[in-house]
Amino acid sequence: MPLLQLAIDTPELEAALSLAREAGRVCDILEVGTPLIVSEGVAAVEALRAEYPTKTILADLKIMDAGRLEAECAFRRGADIVSVLALAADRTLAEALACAAEHGGSILVDLINCPDPVGRARQCERLGAELLCLHLAHDAQGGGADPLERLRALREAVGCRIAVAGGLQVSSVAPAVRCGAEVLIVGSAIAESPSPAEAAARFAAEARRCADGG
Amino acid sequence: MPLLQLAIDTPELEAALSLAREAGRVCDILEVGTPLIVSEGVAAVEALRAEYPTKTILADLKIMDAGRLEAECAFRRGADIVSVLALAADRTLAEALACAAEHGGSILVDLINCPDPVGRARQCERLGAELLCLHLAHDAQGGGADPLERLRALREAVGCRIAVAGGLQVSSVAPAVRCGAEVLIVGSAIAESPSPAEAAARFAAEARRCADGG
Repeated sequence: MPLLQLAIDTPELEAALSLAREAGRVCDILEVGTPLIVSEGVAAVEALRAEYPTKTILADLKIMDAGRLEAECAFRRGADIVSVLALAADRTLAEALACAAEHGGSILVDLINCPDPVGRARQCERLGAELLCLHLAHDAQGGGADPLERLRALREAVGCRIAVAGGLQVSSVAPAVRCGAEVLIVGSAIAESPSPAEAAARFAAEARRCADGG
Repeated sequence: MPLLQLAIDTPELEAALSLAREAGRVCDILEVGTPLIVSEGVAAVEALRAEYPTKTILADLKIMDAGRLEAECAFRRGADIVSVLALAADRTLAEALACAAEHGGSILVDLINCPDPVGRARQCERLGAELLCLHLAHDAQGGGADPLERLRALREAVGCRIAVAGGLQVSSVAPAVRCGAEVLIVGSAIAESPSPAEAAARFAAEARRCADGG
């Protein structure tokens, strides 16, 4: 069954915790978004961990350099998954992956702005990456190809799990899952909904429906 | 005269403040490094601003997405300069530049890992960038060219001010300045010196000597 990841992209900790309380229960992964990391540092990870001792928490650091040092900060404060940019140097990726292994955690390699996401994904897989993130928004990725075509090409190229992000709506869940997405990262469609709880429930129901082959 | 920028790359706030107290006086720019942002958020910017009301402070956010939102967080807490990755989308760069203009601040566009730093620098200049950062470490930049050759090529290609980073030693100051560097970003050569104050003073003296045509 595809996993639902709630991207918490507000820079304000209280708003973040409030969104998690409203919409987080049906989500599999809570993502501490980059703006919240910038604003509060990994204390935001710790604050979510304190409220959700068993939930999977992703710290969206988008590491570009100093792979070990930065990943370590987040794992120590309770992150299960830390994101690294696919555009980072191989050594940075390798260091972050090694750090994750030591902490029993994972790395999400974010393909954002990669001019050749499939080629870079293959390299990342060889470096040990197990989880990739592809942005489906048209302007977030190099190349003009249809986002779902890009997802399908990525699915065929690597064995990694694939997360998709970028303006996901309930209606995009089924096509994304059919094309190989295993993690659905949803931000504004939940956070900016009049009822984040109901919006999250709709995404979760749709993910279940897809898993049932519906 | 070339400016000296102290990169404060420890993730610990007390160690960061202590380094700034020891070595910051002779430095023109204090850089809140990415690991410190990850660890403490922009509170680290605020803490330095409180001690140094008139010093130029750079927040090394390495923005990849959400240009306005993330830059805003740092400018509001006292940053004068915020870094954005050259590998970010044009829209992200444009948003960060607009945000800087609104706050009377600046953007440093970091060319780290750019496969074609000169080509991307030209695009960034067209978008309004005035300050670029080139990494001189051999493995931090695409292409196998000699780092000083890359710097010279960049200097000839754009009118932006150029900062250089990456393992800078006192002995690399004069060649870098001759090749067009206007900001010298120094981290470990000061922070890991037995006397950060003396190391910083040596860099500052060397920068002055270069400016005097020595």
